[in-house]
Amino acid sequence: MFLLDIGNQSLEFHRRLGGKLRTCSKAPIKDRHALSLAYTPGVAAVCNEVKNNPSSAYALTLKGNSVAIVSDGTRVLGLGDIGPLAAIPVMEGKAALLCEFAKIDAFPICLATKDKDEIIRTVRLISPCFGAILLEDIESPKCFEVEATLKKTLGIPVFHDDQHGTAVVVLAALINALKVTGRDAKSAKVVVNGAGAAGIAISKLLTEYGIKNLVVLDSKGAICSARSDLEQYKKEFGAVLPHMACGKLSDVIKSADVFIGASVAGALKQEQAKAMGENPIIFALSNPVPEITHEDAKAAGCKIYASARSDLDNQVNNVLAFPGIFRGALDCRAKQITEGMKLAAALAIARFAQERGLKENYIVPAAFEEGLHKFVAQKVVEAARKEGVAQI
Amino acid sequence: MFLLDIGNQSLEFHRRLGGKLRTCSKAPIKDRHALSLAYTPGVAAVCNEVKNNPSSAYALTLKGNSVAIVSDGTRVLGLGDIGPLAAIPVMEGKAALLCEFAKIDAFPICLATKDKDEIIRTVRLISPCFGAILLEDIESPKCFEVEATLKKTLGIPVFHDDQHGTAVVVLAALINALKVTGRDAKSAKVVVNGAGAAGIAISKLLTEYGIKNLVVLDSKGAICSARSDLEQYKKEFGAVLPHMACGKLSDVIKSADVFIGASVAGALKQEQAKAMGENPIIFALSNPVPEITHEDAKAAGCKIYASARSDLDNQVNNVLAFPGIFRGALDCRAKQITEGMKLAAALAIARFAQERGLKENYIVPAAFEEGLHKFVAQKVVEAARKEGVAQI
Repeated sequence: MFLLDIGNQSLEFHRRLGGKLRTCSKAPIKDRHALSLAYTPGVAAVCNEVKNNPSSAYALTLKGNSVAIVSDGTRVLGLGDIGPLAAIPVMEGKAALLCEFAKIDAFPICLATKDKDEIIRTVRLISPCFGAILLEDIESPKCFEVEATLKKTLGIPVFHDDQHGTAVVVLAALINALKVTGRDAKSAKVVVNGAGAAGIAISKLLTEYGIKNLVVLDSKGAICSARSDLEQYKKEFGAVLPHMACGKLSDVIKSADVFIGASVAGALKQEQAKAMGENPIIFALSNPVPEITHEDAKAAGCKIYASARSDLDNQVNNVLAFPGIFRGALDCRAKQITEGMKLAAALAIARFAQERGLKENYIVPAAFEEGLHKFVAQKVVEAARKEGVAQI
Repeated sequence: MFLLDIGNQSLEFHRRLGGKLRTCSKAPIKDRHALSLAYTPGVAAVCNEVKNNPSSAYALTLKGNSVAIVSDGTRVLGLGDIGPLAAIPVMEGKAALLCEFAKIDAFPICLATKDKDEIIRTVRLISPCFGAILLEDIESPKCFEVEATLKKTLGIPVFHDDQHGTAVVVLAALINALKVTGRDAKSAKVVVNGAGAAGIAISKLLTEYGIKNLVVLDSKGAICSARSDLEQYKKEFGAVLPHMACGKLSDVIKSADVFIGASVAGALKQEQAKAMGENPIIFALSNPVPEITHEDAKAAGCKIYASARSDLDNQVNNVLAFPGIFRGALDCRAKQITEGMKLAAALAIARFAQERGLKENYIVPAAFEEGLHKFVAQKVVEAARKEGVAQI
């Protein structure tokens, strides 16, 4: 009912505005002199300057502040493979959020191909105008290779938000959820349900942070050495996991401290939630419909519940991370976005909430809280400088 | 001296602004409710609507009002093949002009390839987010096939501005120059110097309008049947010309009524200008340095002089045409931009100046004159409806 309602309101909102993103000239062009400066003949001098000194493009053109939001529309929200045209509202929304929260000039690029090599080639060919690339809603396992290849070859930051943006915010939320419930990262039992792009990236970042007791499941059960049906990327990933329980969700969920859902609507049953340890932490991040509803989770004794939805408390949504991460990466002209920069972003988000007073329904800040994205950007810049990837 | 000065001012202008184009959110996203509408969970309903009804993308996303300015940087202004990065200032400027003059959401796309097929494929793959494609500064003869192929396959307007934008404005200026000097289009002797993309498009549109006595030259002389050295596209083009004089510029320029330069700086010598008919019309459109300076043209008896430069009267520059043409094409969701729409645009520009009173130094309006682009757009929409290419 709520979703239907908000959906209709959103349709009306989009129709009234005619989309969400606008481009505009930074300076008015009201007379001949302005035209001479912004366009011909003056602009020839700017072209020559960039030709002779390519890095000046960062200061003299939009490149220094522009991000392409690139998707092939194969894995949009919880809607699946809806194609590039139907993916525009999400990519355009993401661009609008980058503008609104981080003063970044972002533009959606939805690709009319699902072919991995064509995606890589196209992003490479359009990269001159952009200072960074945000990959979004590209299905796994394709997304891993697309990102890895572009990261290696482009020389500008490339960041698959479904993996890393999600991972950063989940880690931030987990740090604070453990704090609120008095648990220790080293001993907490964490179950990640979902071994797609998000599930794997979350598990990796949690491991890097220091989570030791971690079970990750795909739709067939826990990823463990006993499984003979695993795709190559899951096998490789399973090999680096610190802990490898076997079994179905109903088995491994027993006495777990934390459930993190990066799977599908309704994946966590109420009985399974009830089988978790006392005062369980549940992050039901499937979007737009979570793995378990807030009501069902509460009924199972859960006090710290988070979801990806904008209409509930504790919104664990990439929008807490990507504006600040990209702002920081552009500010110091980072060559790439490193593991250290991601950890710094997660710690910054966690600390921002801590300073405002953690509560069961406030383990992460809201996206529009004053100063959040700027704080994340600062910490990302510091980490980039420390790791030697900042160019200015 | 002037160019150096305006060049330095332009560099300073670009440096101060950090480029010319900005993207922004059409609505503020200041609270949870706004986030729910612009992004998750509300946006899922918009994605579903576009999936079920693809043409709704025009009303619900930026597609209905967005134009990609695409270049490979191989023929930028008079600077030549300076590459995609150094081409950004021009493409970004063009985008800013579309925003400023026609409220179009335009974005530059500079391509890191010179390969014809890669350009075609890349534009096709990125087309979902755009309502139209403006091709710019792509060298000939490649530009002809790139445009023709995309026009045939994309289903949205594709317009190579160096060809057609230039042709439209030249025709508008010529109509009025003939009027001011009391000449008749059917008998006027017109020399077009330059058989690149612009020269050929100008010649074709002039012919369509009714110019009968037309000589077109490339760097080796007039295009005529006696030439055995012509590239295929020039041969094809020569075959449709109404009149085929032979010889060098010094020969064919004698007693000509009109010189139209779409060539290189300094291509028209003062002696050649002096050999033209009485009260000659000279359009020296090479950019940023014209075929003959205003001073030299005046000294040769020319009273109607036009150039591409923003700092002189009679600016024959595409910026008079493309904002209105694209505004019109988007307004009626034209499937393509037809010959009739181009002629309508030229006549609209000419009439706009006529209504304000033609003078020797006012044969075309200035780009920032109130109402110009709207008037052009109206006439373009009317032509599109008449020709059956308007979809709304």
